[in-house]
Amino acid sequence: MARSEAVADDWIAVDWGTSSLRVWRMRGADAQEARRSAAGMGTLGRDGFEPALLELIADWVTGAPIPVLACGMVGAKQGWSEAGYRAVPCNPLGAPFHTVQANYPGLAVQIIPGLSQSDPADVMRGEETQIGGCLALDPGFSGTIGLPGTHMKWAQVSNGVVTGFTTTLTGELFALLSQGSVLRHGLGQGWDDAAFADGVLAMQAAPAGFATALFGIRARGLLGQESPDAARARLSGLVIGLELAATAAIWVDQPVTLIGEGRLADLYAQALALHGIQAAKMDNEATTLAGLIHARALLQEMQP
Amino acid sequence: MARSEAVADDWIAVDWGTSSLRVWRMRGADAQEARRSAAGMGTLGRDGFEPALLELIADWVTGAPIPVLACGMVGAKQGWSEAGYRAVPCNPLGAPFHTVQANYPGLAVQIIPGLSQSDPADVMRGEETQIGGCLALDPGFSGTIGLPGTHMKWAQVSNGVVTGFTTTLTGELFALLSQGSVLRHGLGQGWDDAAFADGVLAMQAAPAGFATALFGIRARGLLGQESPDAARARLSGLVIGLELAATAAIWVDQPVTLIGEGRLADLYAQALALHGIQAAKMDNEATTLAGLIHARALLQEMQP
Repeated sequence: MARSEAVADDWIAVDWGTSSLRVWRMRGADAQEARRSAAGMGTLGRDGFEPALLELIADWVTGAPIPVLACGMVGAKQGWSEAGYRAVPCNPLGAPFHTVQANYPGLAVQIIPGLSQSDPADVMRGEETQIGGCLALDPGFSGTIGLPGTHMKWAQVSNGVVTGFTTTLTGELFALLSQGSVLRHGLGQGWDDAAFADGVLAMQAAPAGFATALFGIRARGLLGQESPDAARARLSGLVIGLELAATAAIWVDQPVTLIGEGRLADLYAQALALHGIQAAKMDNEATTLAGLIHARALLQEMQP
Repeated sequence: MARSEAVADDWIAVDWGTSSLRVWRMRGADAQEARRSAAGMGTLGRDGFEPALLELIADWVTGAPIPVLACGMVGAKQGWSEAGYRAVPCNPLGAPFHTVQANYPGLAVQIIPGLSQSDPADVMRGEETQIGGCLALDPGFSGTIGLPGTHMKWAQVSNGVVTGFTTTLTGELFALLSQGSVLRHGLGQGWDDAAFADGVLAMQAAPAGFATALFGIRARGLLGQESPDAARARLSGLVIGLELAATAAIWVDQPVTLIGEGRLADLYAQALALHGIQAAKMDNEATTLAGLIHARALLQEMQP
């Protein structure tokens, strides 16, 4: 009997974003094995999702239909099947979970819905699972959760409820300006902490100056006033600083947790420190998995 | 004698920008004939400038070396020959004009230097000629001159002197966001004046909101709150509005002249009107030619 109980608790957790697909073979709350591929939503047509998933997990799907619970852009309009949004204020994770009709009989796929906000208009998809995971790992947390990425999200959380959130294009803006604009001619690959801080603080003092500060980077270079490495750091400081100026009401005077690792999360932590905020950090993958596990538990509670 | 005097006064005016080359066969202050090509600075290597010019004007160069006076990016570091900058405050046009060593003996080429400002760092190349032309056509003008373009310039002019200027990347930012960012999925080709005005005024009220307003365009579309045409107009309003918020100290409470024609200059005029400013407009080509004629006169005064 022990064996069949364990099998009944087998499922597959899936984090399916724009640029990658990550899967975990789960037994209850324990991850037995993890795999990943580059078959992100952005690379797939609608008919490509099921084959891409099966390619990664075929040997995990052997008997009765196995539950698959997925989060992320897989549930977008351009994804496998649209999962809709739940309107804030609400718990980050909850019904209705979206059921996908898979062709392969061994799969019972559900997708976690995103969150929406009507005024000001905003949406998220995938981050709700990380926020839910953060709260599962740190149940008493109330405050602000920042999720650095191409589209940075700031979510306000109180007593387990997401009360509001806001998205900025900061990561995308930096990529466009550093790779596609006239500024690219003057940017090095190195770094300069002082120029980064200067950019952040300039936007704190006068955010409207963003429009003129951008060409200022080019002009400083042409006039020999700043190195290419400092120019790159200044541009990063300006875009992150503008974002912090826009979102200060969200994160000021309360606990801030950044979900993310690596360079970008470090830069946000540095920029927040310049504003006097010491942010905690949580791991990207750990919060995603914790959120999927929490959502799986909610689903099981709902079943008769 | 009349004929030889006239010939002594023959010269060629050249406006050589990043994306186009325009030439005028001049007799004194009178344009006898105009031609243009797409051989802009951006399409040419250093050895390509002289052939590109000769291709357009070979039949105008027949006897003794003919003076050629050029303005624009032809004098940039990546241009035919670097023409340097004159530091403001200064008259928009003045010595030292830069002499280019052409291979063809029939050409005596000079390039008008750009203007630079050390703090805040800024540069212009080509616009100084239009500003000089504006002052030649309207000698009593003191106030602010705006030059809409990929890199918008705002110049402060007092008693014939450029006292300061500032450049914004607004045009380039709009192009990058509308063509390269996630927003491109939700932008129509039409227009909506109310959404444009809303974008301009939102930035007047709270310029830091730029960082969050951008993704708001995407979210409004996903939630069905705004049409794709209105989304395009709102994006335009946001980038122009952010620029106006950044540069208000330059153009508020004084006469404003916009040099430029077409859609972009109209949008700036509309946005300024929302701020209570009625801008005058001057023609792009007319001011450029007037500036070249004025610079030519200065050169002749300098010669023994």
